[in-house]
Amino acid sequence: MINAIVASTSTIHGSSYLEYLKPALKELYKASNEVVFIPYARPSGLTHDEYTKIAENGLKDLGVKVIGLHTFKNPQQALTNAKAIFTGGGNTFQLVHMLHQLNLMETLKEAIIKGTPYLGTSAGSNICGPTMQTTNDMPVVYPSSFKTTGIIPFNINAHYLDPDTSSTHKGETRETRIKEFHIYNSTTVLGLREGSWLKVKGDDIILEGDLTARVFIKQKPPYEVEKGFNFKELI
Amino acid sequence: MINAIVASTSTIHGSSYLEYLKPALKELYKASNEVVFIPYARPSGLTHDEYTKIAENGLKDLGVKVIGLHTFKNPQQALTNAKAIFTGGGNTFQLVHMLHQLNLMETLKEAIIKGTPYLGTSAGSNICGPTMQTTNDMPVVYPSSFKTTGIIPFNINAHYLDPDTSSTHKGETRETRIKEFHIYNSTTVLGLREGSWLKVKGDDIILEGDLTARVFIKQKPPYEVEKGFNFKELI
Repeated sequence: MINAIVASTSTIHGSSYLEYLKPALKELYKASNEVVFIPYARPSGLTHDEYTKIAENGLKDLGVKVIGLHTFKNPQQALTNAKAIFTGGGNTFQLVHMLHQLNLMETLKEAIIKGTPYLGTSAGSNICGPTMQTTNDMPVVYPSSFKTTGIIPFNINAHYLDPDTSSTHKGETRETRIKEFHIYNSTTVLGLREGSWLKVKGDDIILEGDLTARVFIKQKPPYEVEKGFNFKELI
Repeated sequence: MINAIVASTSTIHGSSYLEYLKPALKELYKASNEVVFIPYARPSGLTHDEYTKIAENGLKDLGVKVIGLHTFKNPQQALTNAKAIFTGGGNTFQLVHMLHQLNLMETLKEAIIKGTPYLGTSAGSNICGPTMQTTNDMPVVYPSSFKTTGIIPFNINAHYLDPDTSSTHKGETRETRIKEFHIYNSTTVLGLREGSWLKVKGDDIILEGDLTARVFIKQKPPYEVEKGFNFKELI
């Protein structure tokens, strides 16, 4: 049974790394004394070691040991045997590139489906949908595929931002970009604002956090759902 | 000899489509009575016909006939024989996907290098650098390669935006994204704000418009260049 937290961001304004998620993480990792951390998204180009250190600090008051996936000789086996997994944010293209290059996408999917507790933040949440095609990131590397784990049946747009009606900028809004995605694709997209996360348990996918989230279904007007909404109703 | 305008945007705030570029376009297209329009970037999913109509309206007071590339049976031949070319903005992934699928990237490059007057706006400017990897667009389709024409030796970041120091949003700034690009790539990037464009004539690549532009060279602090700067000094 899937047991996962899929969060828009690791950090909200005025709060430290992972702080707002702590009560949920205590619950998620309660039976785990060790978390395998996937550092491949490398925000601002941090090394795998540097990024793993940040994750370690973020989780230290939960009493879990954090081990970077890059330190294992056999990362497939490490994911399969992991007691718990955390994929941090950063650049989604780089994350997906590495997961495909090391043949880990399917292994990660299987580990989550069999019930390994999983936390994803930002890029680590983008890989929970069927594809990474609603990321906001820059294509800094060319992954061999845009396919991701699909442990939830819709795509995530992390750090979702509402259109700024006072802006004079002519670049596209997030909503316009998601509409363009739906010209070429039919997968539903969830715009998850900073501070929102999904609690996934088996078939239940519940919206948590204080904000509403925005649902984009192809050829329908987008709409908001409230905290507590169960996305299995959408499927 | 290359004769091109590489613009950050087609439209600036408070002005109509292409209006601010009109004096430069009169000069660019002065010897051309016909422009082949590349509509593949399809902003907001406009059809190729709809988008070509917009380009036609935008250029009508220059007295040039606008023909959509999608209407030709042999688009390679159409580009090779074109009197002038204009690639409009929209989604860079879709534009690059189509150009590779139809084997047009090299043909377009050759046409521009032999001197066919070229206008690119936004996505149409992103394809002037060596790769599309500094686009802001969403990866709505999977192109067979991120390589583009390379008629200028650095990448463009169109619609460049300065960091908003008052923002509480945790998504990455444009500058952070470009720094991430430089973790994995060494190509110089030019952040071109809305209202700026490059006038490319032979080896000269001159910054035009009233704003400064921001240069990102790998492992150096970014800096601003003024109107009139010739980027051949960078190369």
